[in-house]
Amino acid sequence: MKTSPTKVNFNQKFSLFEEQWRPKVIAEMNNYQFKLARLEGEFVWHQHDDTDETFIVLEGELSIDLESGPVVLRAGEMLVIPKGMRHRPHATTEAKVLLVEPVGVVNTGDVESELTAPQDVWV
Amino acid sequence: MKTSPTKVNFNQKFSLFEEQWRPKVIAEMNNYQFKLARLEGEFVWHQHDDTDETFIVLEGELSIDLESGPVVLRAGEMLVIPKGMRHRPHATTEAKVLLVEPVGVVNTGDVESELTAPQDVWV
Repeated sequence: MKTSPTKVNFNQKFSLFEEQWRPKVIAEMNNYQFKLARLEGEFVWHQHDDTDETFIVLEGELSIDLESGPVVLRAGEMLVIPKGMRHRPHATTEAKVLLVEPVGVVNTGDVESELTAPQDVWV
Repeated sequence: MKTSPTKVNFNQKFSLFEEQWRPKVIAEMNNYQFKLARLEGEFVWHQHDDTDETFIVLEGELSIDLESGPVVLRAGEMLVIPKGMRHRPHATTEAKVLLVEPVGVVNTGDVESELTAPQDVWV
């Protein structure tokens, strides 16, 4: 029999790390990953040329600047950034966020920055 | 310039339908869909032979029976059911759930039932 899957509790996983802008993988579905991230301050403008990217806010408030203007997400709200669309997340105080994207997506997309985080770090 | 994406508020979308066991699409990411569902009572045992399936509980409590036993999910918890694994969701009182799965997944998987819901219904 296959190994039974284990449920994931977001708060329990957040209790295991404090770093910001370093997404942590909590689950995989096919070739996609679910990642938790703590976001505060301003990220870099970037884009993902090969994939859409999903932001779901679990706690706090996250702004995502687009070239057309900012979108403000609060807990219980989500946004899918279309592939190739430049965006810049920022948050005045820490936002807790669930990201959904294919395995291997680099957080800073086409930009290399000190904010570029290592891939595939599980928590 | 590309059309800017629109954010989705889960509570606002839930206010638009009352039906249970009829997932409603709220967003697409690549060839995946995010769907909201109200689940109460007992579903049918089924499996999805071609894909994993993700349940994220937003409100209430959802049990998912597996052949190895039940997994109980509360708000802020998620479970990925591996492809080919038989499962049966049920809830004593209504649970509000976010599903993530590829476009075209039938809610009852390999089983045809009166609970089989139409595909690709957006809200």
